Amino acid sequence: MINIAVLGYGTVGSGVVEVIRTNQESINKKAGQDINIKYVLDLREFPGDPVMDILVHDYNVILNDPEVEIVAEVMGGVNPAYDFVKAALEKGKSVCTSNKELVEKHGAELLKIAKEHNRNFLFEASVGGGIPIIRPLNQSLTADEITEITGILNGTTNYILTKMCQEGLAFDTVLKEAQDLGYAERNPEADVEGFDACRKIAILASLAFGKDVDYENIYTEGITKITDVDFKYANSIGCAVKLFGKAKKVDDKFYAYVAPVMVNSTHPLYSVNGVFNGILVNGNVLGDVMFYGSGAGKLPTASAVVSDIVDAVKHLNTNVIIQWSSKKLEITDIKLSSKKFFVRVSGQAEDRLAQIEEAFGKVQVIKVAELTDEFAFITSELTEAAFEEAASKVDGIITRIRIED
Amino acid sequence: MINIAVLGYGTVGSGVVEVIRTNQESINKKAGQDINIKYVLDLREFPGDPVMDILVHDYNVILNDPEVEIVAEVMGGVNPAYDFVKAALEKGKSVCTSNKELVEKHGAELLKIAKEHNRNFLFEASVGGGIPIIRPLNQSLTADEITEITGILNGTTNYILTKMCQEGLAFDTVLKEAQDLGYAERNPEADVEGFDACRKIAILASLAFGKDVDYENIYTEGITKITDVDFKYANSIGCAVKLFGKAKKVDDKFYAYVAPVMVNSTHPLYSVNGVFNGILVNGNVLGDVMFYGSGAGKLPTASAVVSDIVDAVKHLNTNVIIQWSSKKLEITDIKLSSKKFFVRVSGQAEDRLAQIEEAFGKVQVIKVAELTDEFAFITSELTEAAFEEAASKVDGIITRIRIED
Repeated sequence: MINIAVLGYGTVGSGVVEVIRTNQESINKKAGQDINIKYVLDLREFPGDPVMDILVHDYNVILNDPEVEIVAEVMGGVNPAYDFVKAALEKGKSVCTSNKELVEKHGAELLKIAKEHNRNFLFEASVGGGIPIIRPLNQSLTADEITEITGILNGTTNYILTKMCQEGLAFDTVLKEAQDLGYAERNPEADVEGFDACRKIAILASLAFGKDVDYENIYTEGITKITDVDFKYANSIGCAVKLFGKAKKVDDKFYAYVAPVMVNSTHPLYSVNGVFNGILVNGNVLGDVMFYGSGAGKLPTASAVVSDIVDAVKHLNTNVIIQWSSKKLEITDIKLSSKKFFVRVSGQAEDRLAQIEEAFGKVQVIKVAELTDEFAFITSELTEAAFEEAASKVDGIITRIRIED
Repeated sequence: MINIAVLGYGTVGSGVVEVIRTNQESINKKAGQDINIKYVLDLREFPGDPVMDILVHDYNVILNDPEVEIVAEVMGGVNPAYDFVKAALEKGKSVCTSNKELVEKHGAELLKIAKEHNRNFLFEASVGGGIPIIRPLNQSLTADEITEITGILNGTTNYILTKMCQEGLAFDTVLKEAQDLGYAERNPEADVEGFDACRKIAILASLAFGKDVDYENIYTEGITKITDVDFKYANSIGCAVKLFGKAKKVDDKFYAYVAPVMVNSTHPLYSVNGVFNGILVNGNVLGDVMFYGSGAGKLPTASAVVSDIVDAVKHLNTNVIIQWSSKKLEITDIKLSSKKFFVRVSGQAEDRLAQIEEAFGKVQVIKVAELTDEFAFITSELTEAAFEEAASKVDGIITRIRIED
C-alpha cells in the first residue's frame, strides 16, 4: 500500500479525492499497488464531509510522516506551495501538482531536487487540464526534436472568442455571460489578458526545448481589443480568431508569444471551440500531432493529477527523466519574427490602396458589405518590425490581428 | 551504451535507422544512455547503403548476442515476426514493434512473456502511426475507466472519403487516384473493407478494457458501398461520412464495430480529413480527449517505434504495467446496440412517408433538389435489430448509413 497526502481541499483537491474513490479498484490495478489517501491538508474544517477523519491543518504532520510517499499539491499559488513542495521532495517524497504558477516559476529547480533524491516531480495537470500533454511530451515524443508548439491553452478566452464568432456578440456581453456561467472569474484579467496562457506556453516551451523559459520574456497580448467587427471580417473569409500560445524554433533561434490570431478552417486548432483546449506539437520527424480535450474543470484536472500519482507509484524509487534544465532559454525579440497580418483601416479601399501598397507592398483587400466606412487588408509575410515600420506610414489603422497558417 | 537490433529494413525499418541517426544526440539525452544500432536484419543486400556494415541475414546472430538488449520488429506480418519476438523476449530482450497483426493476434501472450522476464513489449506504432495513443492510454489515462474509444484509424479510407466529400467524386475514381498517389495499395481490400481499422480498434479495445478482443468478433463494414450520392445528402445536412472503429462499454456490456458513419460538424472527429487519423477517448472522470496526427508514413511510424525504444531503455529491467489479460472480452452482438440511421429510399416522400413511419415511427425527411426519384430519412435511435425489422417492411431502400453524435 502506498500512502499519499492531498494538499488543499478546494475544487481540484476534492476532485482528486473523488476520482480516487470513484475509480479506486482500476487505479490500484494500473498502479500495481493500493493507493491510500492518508491525509488531506486544509486550514478549513469540513464538518460532515467524509474527508474529516483524515483532515490535518499542520503540514508538518504530513512532512514528518515517513509513511507518506507521495504528495499531491493542489492549493495553487506560489506561496506556501513552493516551500511545501520543496520540503516534501527533500524528505524523499514524490510530488504531483496542478499548480501552473509553481511549475512555471520553479519547475527547473524542483525537477533538479526530485532527481537528486531519486523521486519525481510531476505536473500533468498544470497545462491543458485533463489533456495528456506533459507526459506525452516527456515520454512519447522522445524520438523527435520539437520544432513548434501551438496551443489554445485557456478555456475562458476560447469560450468568449467562440461565442463572439458564432453569435456576433460584443466582447463585454460575452464576458459577462461567461462570468454568470462560472466560465470566467469576476476578476478576469489573468485569462483575458493572456497571462494564464503565457504561463502554460512557458511550461510547454521549457519542456519542448529543454531549457528554462521565463514567462516574463514572452510577448503577451490578450483578447480585450478583439471586437464583433473583427469577426465580421473573419467570418467573411472563413476564419476564426483564437488566442494562441506559441513557441517555435527557427534555425537556432527561439520565438514565443501569446496573442489573438486569425486561422482558417484548414488549421487543426480552428475547430477547437468553447471551453476546450487544443495543443498542436510539431516534431522534426513526426510532423504534426494534436491533443484536444477539457482544459479545465474539477474532474478532468483531478484526473490528470491522479494519473501523475499512478505514475509516481510506478516509479517510486526511480527518477523519470524530464529535460528542463535551469539554464535560461533566450527568446528572440518578437519584432524579428515573421507572419502575415490582417489590418482594418478607415476609408474606402479605392482611395487608399495606393498609399497602403506603397507602405506594405501588395496586399489582399477584404470588404464587408455592411461596413461602409472601413475595409481591411491582409499583408504578405513580413517581420513584426517591418509591419510596424509600414504601419507608421498609413493613417487610420483601426486594428491589426496576426495570421497563422 | 545500449545495443539494439532492427528486424526488417523496409519502409519503417529504414525510417527507424534514419530517425535515430537524425536525432541521435537528443534521443540519447532523453533515453539517458547512448543508443547504438548494432544489427539490421534483412534477407536482402543493400549495396552502398551505410547499413551494409551492420546487416545480418541470420536472426540467431541477434538472438544469441547478449549485448543486444532491445529489438525493434518492423517486418510486419505474423510469421516469422511472432517467433522472432517471442524468442527475443524469452532471451530477456525488450521488443518494440509497429506490427498490428502481431499485436492484435498475440499481444496478450507477448505482454505476459515480457512481464515474466521483467522486460517490455511495446507497440506504440501499431495504431495511429506517429500519434501517441498506446502510451497515453497505458500511462496517462490511468485515473479513468475508459468508457468509449472512437477512431479514424485508417488514412487510406479517410483520404478517399474526404475527397468524395469535398469534390463530389465517385468511390472508384478516388480509389484509383489514391492508388496512383501511393496512398492506397494496388490490392486495397484490407483498407477499404475495414480490416485494417478493425485490427487497430481491437488493440485499442483490449488496452482500454484490459481483456483480449479478437478482431474476428468485431462487426466490420467497409466503405465500398458509399457513393457520391450519399455525400450529396450528407453535405446538404452539414455532415461528413467517416470510417469509424469504435469500442464502447454500456453498463456491463461491450460493443465494438467498424463501419462508415455520418457525423455532423460538432463531432470532434468531423474535421479529421485526408490521410490523418484521429482517436477520441472518453474516460468516466476525464470526459473526451482526442489525439490527432499522421496515422501512417515512414517517418511518423518510425518516430513512434523509436519513442518505444527510448522507453525500453528507460525501463531496461522493469516491466511497465500494461493491462491486457489473455481472458477474452465478450463483445455483445451489434444487433443489440442502438443508434440513429440515415436511410435512402426510392420514390417520393409524399407518397411513401406513411408506410415508412408505420415501420420506423417518426422520421426526419431529407430531400436533395437534384435527386428527383429518391429521398432520405433519419430514424430516431433504435437497435440494429429493430432497424432491420422495420427496414424489412419498407420496400425500395437503397442504402443505410449509421449516424454517430
